Amino acid sequence: MTIKVSKEEMAPFLDEVFPQVRGMFGIDRLDEELLVMRLFADDRHLRPGGTVSGPAMFGLADVSAYVATMARIGREALAVTTNCSIDFMRKPVSGADVLAECRVLKLGKALSVCDVLLFSEGTPEPVARANLTYSLPPKR
Amino acid sequence: MTIKVSKEEMAPFLDEVFPQVRGMFGIDRLDEELLVMRLFADDRHLRPGGTVSGPAMFGLADVSAYVATMARIGREALAVTTNCSIDFMRKPVSGADVLAECRVLKLGKALSVCDVLLFSEGTPEPVARANLTYSLPPKR
Amino acid sequence: MTIKVSKEEMAPFLDEVFPQVRGMFGIDRLDEELLVMRLFADDRHLRPGGTVSGPAMFGLADVSAYVATMARIGREALAVTTNCSIDFMRKPVSGADVLAECRVLKLGKALSVCDVLLFSEGTPEPVARANLTYSLPPKR
Amino acid sequence: MTIKVSKEEMAPFLDEVFPQVRGMFGIDRLDEELLVMRLFADDRHLRPGGTVSGPAMFGLADVSAYVATMARIGREALAVTTNCSIDFMRKPVSGADVLAECRVLKLGKALSVCDVLLFSEGTPEPVARANLTYSLPPKR
Repeated sequence: MTIKVSKEEMAPFLDEVFPQVRGMFGIDRLDEELLVMRLFADDRHLRPGGTVSGPAMFGLADVSAYVATMARIGREALAVTTNCSIDFMRKPVSGADVLAECRVLKLGKALSVCDVLLFSEGTPEPVARANLTYSLPPKR
Repeated sequence: MTIKVSKEEMAPFLDEVFPQVRGMFGIDRLDEELLVMRLFADDRHLRPGGTVSGPAMFGLADVSAYVATMARIGREALAVTTNCSIDFMRKPVSGADVLAECRVLKLGKALSVCDVLLFSEGTPEPVARANLTYSLPPKR
Repeated sequence: MTIKVSKEEMAPFLDEVFPQVRGMFGIDRLDEELLVMRLFADDRHLRPGGTVSGPAMFGLADVSAYVATMARIGREALAVTTNCSIDFMRKPVSGADVLAECRVLKLGKALSVCDVLLFSEGTPEPVARANLTYSLPPKR
Repeated sequence: MTIKVSKEEMAPFLDEVFPQVRGMFGIDRLDEELLVMRLFADDRHLRPGGTVSGPAMFGLADVSAYVATMARIGREALAVTTNCSIDFMRKPVSGADVLAECRVLKLGKALSVCDVLLFSEGTPEPVARANLTYSLPPKR
């Protein structure tokens, strides 16, 4: 699955499509094998005790699957999430960025299926895992 | 499953436990049969085109399952989400509040399992559905 | 969502499409509001202690979503399950048939989304719940 | 997470706990990094066209998560599946065994969380992926 949109091209596209989350996420790596995205530790997403909230982790997994898919089909703002299953396994480390490692398991005509592991930066055991399905616009 | 915490008692408890989402959610109904919560339509949660974002819908489903569980076991800030599977089925109506109808399917010693249907207010067909599992603190 | 295939027409269609499970399942009710299917208690599906196995409950949920979808789009053997999330909540009652109550939440052009509750016959609390997505063949 | 039950010890334990599926599954590899299990291609599990059924793939994923968990906590027949989310991505190859690669993402006191990828033997792209949660018996 060739990468059609580079890391450098993806960032301004994301800002254009999701202006409301501008500055929340970064892209560390984007190639055929793996996408690594980053949720910057930031007060807006914190729960009491300083940990990243469940919705913020869901948001990171969701945007990662979107970016991994867009990188392969080209910039198509119309792809939509149809399903996500997420397991929360450990408390994220307070104050640490959260990293998402995203792999595309299937890119079909109608659906894209991605797996995501989330880590607190600097900690080897995952804080959460998710799988997401995106519905793709027809006639690409 | 008797309700131990009323609608009126739950709101200040939520504000105390999750101060960062104060003002985002309301509780319309809370009894043994059904919990109805509301995500107020608000710019912070919108995508381009004015619809409510996926993470905001996830957040509404998540807080609903938390409230429905707390209402039955008593106020325990330590319950944590362990799993959520969510299907996004229709685009929410722009500008409308999103309502969550939450039912508790199982309340065991260690786990609580809830079902949630999400609707744009005034529209009969659900925009999303979710099931959530909360892990409950021991020695309740 | 009008029902195009009646309960009486569905049974021989199922036998034709899935001959390997002939005699395993029955249809109790099929109308616009609800489908009720039945897994006959039978040694093949039992675990030690006489309870119905997880894969047998998954199979019942899966065939229910298939039947509910076929009843609305017409007999199309090519629809395939793309996703299922299932929560097992209670031990099924030994020796009792398992009933599935299936509702179609969305029937789109490309996807059908169904919710299923599973009960041991004669017991009010669900033993499991599932949501399933079927991918539908194009050009219906 | 040290392995307490070897591949050789696990097979007779499985036969004892699940006599009804004796001969259906094999264990190819069992170590700290990875468990590989095998569903033998067999008429009982086939759909029309000769492919492995959804319930059979679910069963393989389920037994894999069970074996991976038992290998770490010791033989405890009482662990039960509480949740599974499974994505079916490609049609399995007719006549080929299905292999499951299972990794334990979290082994806590109360829950075990596993990821499983399913492949038709000899084919590099996964036919399905699943995540499963097992509830563990107390006082281990």
